[in-house]
Amino acid sequence: MNATGMQCPADLRKDELIVLGHGSGGKLSAELVRKVFLPALSNPILDRLNDGAELNLDAGRIAFTTDSFVVNPLRFPGGDIGSLAVNGTINDLAVIGAQPLGLSAAFILEEGFPIAELRDIVESIRDASRQAAVPIIAADTKVVERGKADGMFITTSGFGIIPSGLELGPERAMPGDAVLVSGPIGDHGIAVMSAREGLRFETTVVSDCAALHGLAATMIATGGKVRCMRDATRGGVATVINELAASSGVEIIIDEPAVPARDAVRAACEILGLDPLYVACEGRLVAIVDPADADRILAAMRRHPLGEGACRIGAVTRKHNPRVLLRTAFGPTRLLDLLPGDQLPRIC
Amino acid sequence: MNATGMQCPADLRKDELIVLGHGSGGKLSAELVRKVFLPALSNPILDRLNDGAELNLDAGRIAFTTDSFVVNPLRFPGGDIGSLAVNGTINDLAVIGAQPLGLSAAFILEEGFPIAELRDIVESIRDASRQAAVPIIAADTKVVERGKADGMFITTSGFGIIPSGLELGPERAMPGDAVLVSGPIGDHGIAVMSAREGLRFETTVVSDCAALHGLAATMIATGGKVRCMRDATRGGVATVINELAASSGVEIIIDEPAVPARDAVRAACEILGLDPLYVACEGRLVAIVDPADADRILAAMRRHPLGEGACRIGAVTRKHNPRVLLRTAFGPTRLLDLLPGDQLPRIC
Repeated sequence: MNATGMQCPADLRKDELIVLGHGSGGKLSAELVRKVFLPALSNPILDRLNDGAELNLDAGRIAFTTDSFVVNPLRFPGGDIGSLAVNGTINDLAVIGAQPLGLSAAFILEEGFPIAELRDIVESIRDASRQAAVPIIAADTKVVERGKADGMFITTSGFGIIPSGLELGPERAMPGDAVLVSGPIGDHGIAVMSAREGLRFETTVVSDCAALHGLAATMIATGGKVRCMRDATRGGVATVINELAASSGVEIIIDEPAVPARDAVRAACEILGLDPLYVACEGRLVAIVDPADADRILAAMRRHPLGEGACRIGAVTRKHNPRVLLRTAFGPTRLLDLLPGDQLPRIC
Repeated sequence: MNATGMQCPADLRKDELIVLGHGSGGKLSAELVRKVFLPALSNPILDRLNDGAELNLDAGRIAFTTDSFVVNPLRFPGGDIGSLAVNGTINDLAVIGAQPLGLSAAFILEEGFPIAELRDIVESIRDASRQAAVPIIAADTKVVERGKADGMFITTSGFGIIPSGLELGPERAMPGDAVLVSGPIGDHGIAVMSAREGLRFETTVVSDCAALHGLAATMIATGGKVRCMRDATRGGVATVINELAASSGVEIIIDEPAVPARDAVRAACEILGLDPLYVACEGRLVAIVDPADADRILAAMRRHPLGEGACRIGAVTRKHNPRVLLRTAFGPTRLLDLLPGDQLPRIC
């Protein structure tokens, strides 16, 4: 009994599902942290259970980013919402040239969510965080009533250090630059769609979900001039290239036959009526680089395990009239625009 | 028409509600950013629309924190989910002694959410961010299907700098220390409950939702020894003091008659069967300080607009047997424990 006269329910069945009390900040919250989060994510900073994480930096240039993850279903071939949340936020830091140093993870859980499943996903977060060598140093959990969320949402934020002197930005593309992509596109989107209720189809495609900071650092280490990079998530490669064209105010032409995609992805796209250029990746980046350095950067990418399938797929053609054109296999070019609405909802 | 043959729906009614396409990363996402987020939150870092924010720091000690906000209802007397999300995360930095430098905001929106309401809340974020002088420098939006979220959830993360030499931590409380609270407790919880569907009762209480970094800096600037601070959110003052007692391994005795609470909060708690000590605040902090410096720190707090009602409410009594005791008005003490379950779900 406590001050409010409430008794702690001791039966096991309740204990196995998330209840609203797990989000109360009280005893059940403390128990969830102790039994589920800390065993998986333990590190000296997180273990202090302070309101904020603290660490020492020599730092000059800090990078900072955030992303919510609402992928449906929570698990898919090649990953789950946990690995996705870790790698996705690392990638947002990687593509601006930052060395990721720490992540936060904030969970919104639906009442009734199985704690065993929560534990699995927290362990997946741990594994992805270890593999990337980027610790989770701050966390939070909220619980909402049954029917007020869809199992679990995770928001990760991250920060890192950008090496001094590195100049990288979406506004830096210029005519003549080469456009590179780090590997076959669309794997993540097709893997998630294949796992989705009501849309099951046979495919061997697994998500490309991976942390790209090593690959990005390898590219930068060549000394070649990388103008900008972006990971091709929601909206796929076509969307990312449109964003970069808009930020730099340039026209970009993509050579469709040069764009790498697995046969299985192309086949699935045929079935689903999708264009692979708009299908999300979670472990591929687009880079715009100085044409004089393109071959050297591409060679370095291909020597990295996450860049083996890297290709040059297009070029920046001119200033003004920012747009993206696609040169098809048959010769003519057409506009490769942003999607007007939603192609694949809840893909990340 | 675009590559996938989809047409952008032009009718206005759809435009006024959130649709899944607003979370797609495509044209509708870009429009939402341009029409709703940037007009309110514009600053040179966010305006770059890069994957991550970048800024320069002299920095030594970086503080980093995250919190999801699922408050129900979205608006309540004295605030809304937007101001709460800004102030709540600033406060997590403030109580570890950090000067907050930047925030991120990640939105999970339910399909069908009115864009006008989103705009209002984004403007509330802007106002809170301006008032605190802490910019939003990174953001993200996801949309889930109708019925898969409850209107809107916001996750904010933040980072800041801790002045070198400052020693503050939940494990630093020691016997003899004084326990302070910065003002009357429970206002936020009662304000939210009063706005909640099915639980309407007359009260004049408005949320204490406020950013505490100024107050915290004032306390530190006295030069008095502040051992640790914590903002009393979910679970209220009782929970926070229990957490500090556990981290420091000390017994703390709280003097119930010394705990400040408005008459209206006490009256509402009577009606609802709650103990004010467990009711959330969003603009109050608990501090444990050296007894020799307590009067000086308390005087400084009272000169600050957010600390006018500050009081000394208890003391750290001894090492070992970490627990919190409440000395009631009638003399005897009783255990002031963590809540076993949920008192007030979705209060932040």
